[in-house]
Amino acid sequence: MKDHPILKAARGEKTDYTPIWIMRQAGRYSERYRKIRAQAGSFMELCKNPKLAAEVTLIPIEEIGIDAAILFSDILVPLEKMGIDVSFVEGKGPILEPKAEKLEDVEKLKIPEPEKDLPYVLETIQLIKKRLTDRPLIGFSGAPFTLASYMLEGGSSKNYIAAKSTMWNEPELWDALMSKLAETVIEYLSSQIKAGVDLIQIFDSWMGVLSKDDYEKFVFPYTERIVNELKKRYPEIPIIHFGVNAGHLLEVNNRLSVDVIGLDWKTEIPFALERIDKSIQGNLDPVTLFADEKIIEERVRKILIEGLKARGHIFNLGHGILPPTDPKKAKFLVDTVHKVSKELRG
Amino acid sequence: MKDHPILKAARGEKTDYTPIWIMRQAGRYSERYRKIRAQAGSFMELCKNPKLAAEVTLIPIEEIGIDAAILFSDILVPLEKMGIDVSFVEGKGPILEPKAEKLEDVEKLKIPEPEKDLPYVLETIQLIKKRLTDRPLIGFSGAPFTLASYMLEGGSSKNYIAAKSTMWNEPELWDALMSKLAETVIEYLSSQIKAGVDLIQIFDSWMGVLSKDDYEKFVFPYTERIVNELKKRYPEIPIIHFGVNAGHLLEVNNRLSVDVIGLDWKTEIPFALERIDKSIQGNLDPVTLFADEKIIEERVRKILIEGLKARGHIFNLGHGILPPTDPKKAKFLVDTVHKVSKELRG
Repeated sequence: MKDHPILKAARGEKTDYTPIWIMRQAGRYSERYRKIRAQAGSFMELCKNPKLAAEVTLIPIEEIGIDAAILFSDILVPLEKMGIDVSFVEGKGPILEPKAEKLEDVEKLKIPEPEKDLPYVLETIQLIKKRLTDRPLIGFSGAPFTLASYMLEGGSSKNYIAAKSTMWNEPELWDALMSKLAETVIEYLSSQIKAGVDLIQIFDSWMGVLSKDDYEKFVFPYTERIVNELKKRYPEIPIIHFGVNAGHLLEVNNRLSVDVIGLDWKTEIPFALERIDKSIQGNLDPVTLFADEKIIEERVRKILIEGLKARGHIFNLGHGILPPTDPKKAKFLVDTVHKVSKELRG
Repeated sequence: MKDHPILKAARGEKTDYTPIWIMRQAGRYSERYRKIRAQAGSFMELCKNPKLAAEVTLIPIEEIGIDAAILFSDILVPLEKMGIDVSFVEGKGPILEPKAEKLEDVEKLKIPEPEKDLPYVLETIQLIKKRLTDRPLIGFSGAPFTLASYMLEGGSSKNYIAAKSTMWNEPELWDALMSKLAETVIEYLSSQIKAGVDLIQIFDSWMGVLSKDDYEKFVFPYTERIVNELKKRYPEIPIIHFGVNAGHLLEVNNRLSVDVIGLDWKTEIPFALERIDKSIQGNLDPVTLFADEKIIEERVRKILIEGLKARGHIFNLGHGILPPTDPKKAKFLVDTVHKVSKELRG
């Protein structure tokens, strides 16, 4: 397993082809996923059902021949065990309550003990690892800023007024919340690693809404704390760091001891390579899978050629695969990445 | 009027202070605006009522002492006269139909004659100009890509699947639509200039969702056509070009013959100045107006200092002012920009 191309690419070692996985690869674009989700009852029930969660995690291995599985779960799963009610309303996204608006609220939040509080996640990992022996399993967590945003906004947000004004106007509350989240993420990811994941991705999906100064001052230190602690505990486990619209944060994030930085499709690879010396992940526009195959191949080729200059390259979309995507196009993407990268590296 | 600081800053001439206007300055954060909008019946009826539209245009001049007025209207207003039904559904954004999905649909679209088809817009401009004699009036239009997105998606969009796949898969349809929109925008902005506006802003609000290659190939040429034609017809009228999340497009947009490039708050001014030699507009995060005054002043000062290095600087938010903003904070912003910039330039 240690020599799987995804792990080698993360470590910056030479590979025969460019490996690929896709964010949200076990998701709504797959009919089988939709059936299993219906069977589970709801999205959150599916996340908490190890047998079914393991089942959907493995779908893209079988259906599109992807190079790695990613644990089927949601970044909000651990928040429930901190003492936050998380519900998903169709078409409205998640609703979180109570909001972490006062220092007392934050003090009441618990740092979950994953083995005790989140056993279904760890059991899912163990079930997957039993069946998936030839490819890596990716574990993941949201980063403190993205989690804090959900907790302060009470759900998804367009403008992040609550998160940003807390950050600026109530530094003590902000630090307490972000510190607690950093501890939570450290323990959560450690437990995933102990349960068997081979590499991890930290999703700071919304960091790109912050100016560089704000990111550097109010967010980066907490992510750094997580990365440093994980690298101390598990130096052999590669870490990927990802967020969208974050080209302006590359120089700052290059200071993280992560192995891979994920890029969206607006952050061009040559631009990124001037700013970071990590391996890269990305970065095809997810909408490209609605283009004709000729166009997909052309764009994949360009990204693969640019990626050759990186320390290592894991192919991915620049954000999650979109629910209306035709699964045939996803399979075409995987095949094309393999074919063209072999040709380019051969 | 020709020597007003906004016009001088746009032309790159020295000014005694940094002038400021705010995107959506005549908007929902103002109680008087909300009252007049209720009186008009709906947002679209307000846009088409010259007396009331002129009235709301002037609110921020009186209420917050802003340096320029911007015509109260909406980028979708001219589309109605192309043959598209535009309706606003509360909380859902605009709904446009029919979608421009086939070449025949595009061929049927009319290029509006503003004097005949959009007289209320021009009348609004004339009414404002009669009352506003000491400050410039800004006219505006959406750019072809942003308008085409609305027309192809049938409204707002999260992923721009329809717009992008048309662009890639149906180049003939795309060119026909974008060409028609470019002609529409040229005539629409020309009529605004003839009616009296002193400078114009072209909103390509959503261009930032495109990769640089796509923007350069499928979007830039049409915006360039508009800018070149307007500069030929009205060389003395400054043009501002703006969109969000568009830091990766700066080098391309610097090739437009515009005078000013608007920046969002993620695009740092020093980064922009390495890529463009135009005057700049921006770029305070709109959420900053929810911070304490001390923080607002600190951030305004930083932007003003950075802006001193630009050819010219018009202060603005990095996107529209948010509806829940306290109007007192907007006034504080205007006063602070004036006070601090006088001090810095003095």
